[in-house]
Amino acid sequence: MATIKDVARLAGVSPSTASRVIHDSPLISEPTKIRVRAAMEKLDYSPNFTAQNLANQKTNMVGIVLPLTSQRVVDDPFFLKIIQGITQVCNQHDYLVLLAAGKTSQELLQNVQSMIKRGNIKNFIFTYSSQQDPVLNYVSDQPGINCVLIGKPSDKRERNLKFVDNDNLQAGSDAANFLLGRHFNKLAYVYTDLRQVVQNDRYLGVKQVVDQQTSEQLLCLKLKLDDYLYNRQAFQQLLKNDSQVNGFVACDDTVGIRLQQLLKSSSIAHQTNYGIICFNNSIFSRISHPSLTSVEVFPLQLGERAALLALGLANQEPNFSLIVDHQIIERNSTRN
Amino acid sequence: MATIKDVARLAGVSPSTASRVIHDSPLISEPTKIRVRAAMEKLDYSPNFTAQNLANQKTNMVGIVLPLTSQRVVDDPFFLKIIQGITQVCNQHDYLVLLAAGKTSQELLQNVQSMIKRGNIKNFIFTYSSQQDPVLNYVSDQPGINCVLIGKPSDKRERNLKFVDNDNLQAGSDAANFLLGRHFNKLAYVYTDLRQVVQNDRYLGVKQVVDQQTSEQLLCLKLKLDDYLYNRQAFQQLLKNDSQVNGFVACDDTVGIRLQQLLKSSSIAHQTNYGIICFNNSIFSRISHPSLTSVEVFPLQLGERAALLALGLANQEPNFSLIVDHQIIERNSTRN
Repeated sequence: MATIKDVARLAGVSPSTASRVIHDSPLISEPTKIRVRAAMEKLDYSPNFTAQNLANQKTNMVGIVLPLTSQRVVDDPFFLKIIQGITQVCNQHDYLVLLAAGKTSQELLQNVQSMIKRGNIKNFIFTYSSQQDPVLNYVSDQPGINCVLIGKPSDKRERNLKFVDNDNLQAGSDAANFLLGRHFNKLAYVYTDLRQVVQNDRYLGVKQVVDQQTSEQLLCLKLKLDDYLYNRQAFQQLLKNDSQVNGFVACDDTVGIRLQQLLKSSSIAHQTNYGIICFNNSIFSRISHPSLTSVEVFPLQLGERAALLALGLANQEPNFSLIVDHQIIERNSTRN
Repeated sequence: MATIKDVARLAGVSPSTASRVIHDSPLISEPTKIRVRAAMEKLDYSPNFTAQNLANQKTNMVGIVLPLTSQRVVDDPFFLKIIQGITQVCNQHDYLVLLAAGKTSQELLQNVQSMIKRGNIKNFIFTYSSQQDPVLNYVSDQPGINCVLIGKPSDKRERNLKFVDNDNLQAGSDAANFLLGRHFNKLAYVYTDLRQVVQNDRYLGVKQVVDQQTSEQLLCLKLKLDDYLYNRQAFQQLLKNDSQVNGFVACDDTVGIRLQQLLKSSSIAHQTNYGIICFNNSIFSRISHPSLTSVEVFPLQLGERAALLALGLANQEPNFSLIVDHQIIERNSTRN
């Protein structure tokens, strides 16, 4: 394999000049740059990542932080889409992608610490945003680390972090309005963990719609899925009695499909009497029966834009937006 | 941050001796090693990955090759489980994990080339095995690259590669025998791409069982799912007429659940008359309705063992096996 010395010799410059060309130094004249680059091309020279890392004290690598801490995440292909978006952009710009993952927060933290201390990784993309996250706390305390969240920062401390996100508040409101438009007016929001900023934002969006209405018919309950999966009687009470819930906004598709199963197994429930809308429009929405109306949130774009931010390329895009669109995809679960 | 020189000074040895201790050189005496390690601990010294990489001409990094080339893979959380297994082992042994992914084979190949040429990555885990794969062809041609497959090598050229796998032939036979035991005896194997070694092996296992039986009642058809998804009439012919297929072995859960939808939408089909067994026992088996009987293949273990092989640690395990077990999990889709 050709070395920087071979390139310098062929171009008739010193190795340090050749190196400055690689780093696009303003000290080198344009004709020299052209000559050196031609030599690099002729010799099929690739600057060595690790050598560059040492020289620059920075790495052309990006670390993805993936919370494989819950079964729910491991089961959700949503994260593979985000990874796909990130790797696409990184491939285009010659960045390598590292993966930090762990079964527990502690393992994830150790993995990230190792990447910083020993791998000299300076760029991180968090594929989630959650309250009081020890991993994010650690990373954002380190000097010289560039950190991008997919999801909205959860508190003031993090407000200076870069992030991309959907407008989940608006998406929650849109979902609620969609159900109201289909004459489901006793709404329940079904979630698993409101410390996840995305789940909380979607709830606030639903609540906002219900609060703004004057009709007394309206209702907005907040249901933690796990409380009802193992207590079907309590669930049936929600459908009868005072509340008579008839429309569900599920925080994502995996929750939507489990809610659907709960409805199927509830003796009084007949599917068509209940509306369900959920989020992410993943394969789970398409394969469920009846198929689930879902809010598409474009995870591939979330990944791509997060990568552009992490690589410092976002501003070069003419219409770059940190907020990725969302769009309701109607299916059978909301046909009243 | 402490350097190797600080460690050497505190331990009263030369920097090169300290370095040899880090690499556990047999040239250094045990008492010296203990002294140097104590100094490392006291100073919270972490050897720098990139510096080590240059010095050793090898990296303590492993590249995972993930084929995000088809929608089917992006939708399948099976791969997240494999990634989880790999990262667990790598975290324990202070290896960093890189991810090669691409929308096309070409993009995936470029990504892997970049990891080798510029990242100096020497260890790769392929999360799949497929016939005439340009990426694997490239990697296995490179000198000094350690390559582990999850899945059986597809041809002679690759026979010297290390791999971990389930016994998919046996698993296919077990699935077929399971259906026969439930009195489904006109079998069809449903697949998407037989160039994928795993899909082909499972088919051969099913076929073997049927071929060994003498009863003329038996049947084994090979159905490509895509041919029937858009041609429901052809699908209905399979259920009626000569073939009267009543038992399906689906190559994986995502195919199983789509097959189930096809059956639901076929006017003559009543679910309970048909048996379906599939593979992977992912979330798709649990959430389908009726729930799908599926062969658990333990992807977490596949990932863990692949990582142990890639790190050269497999032989240290006392009962290390390259073949990971499988186990049939019965659900409602095979109750006749």
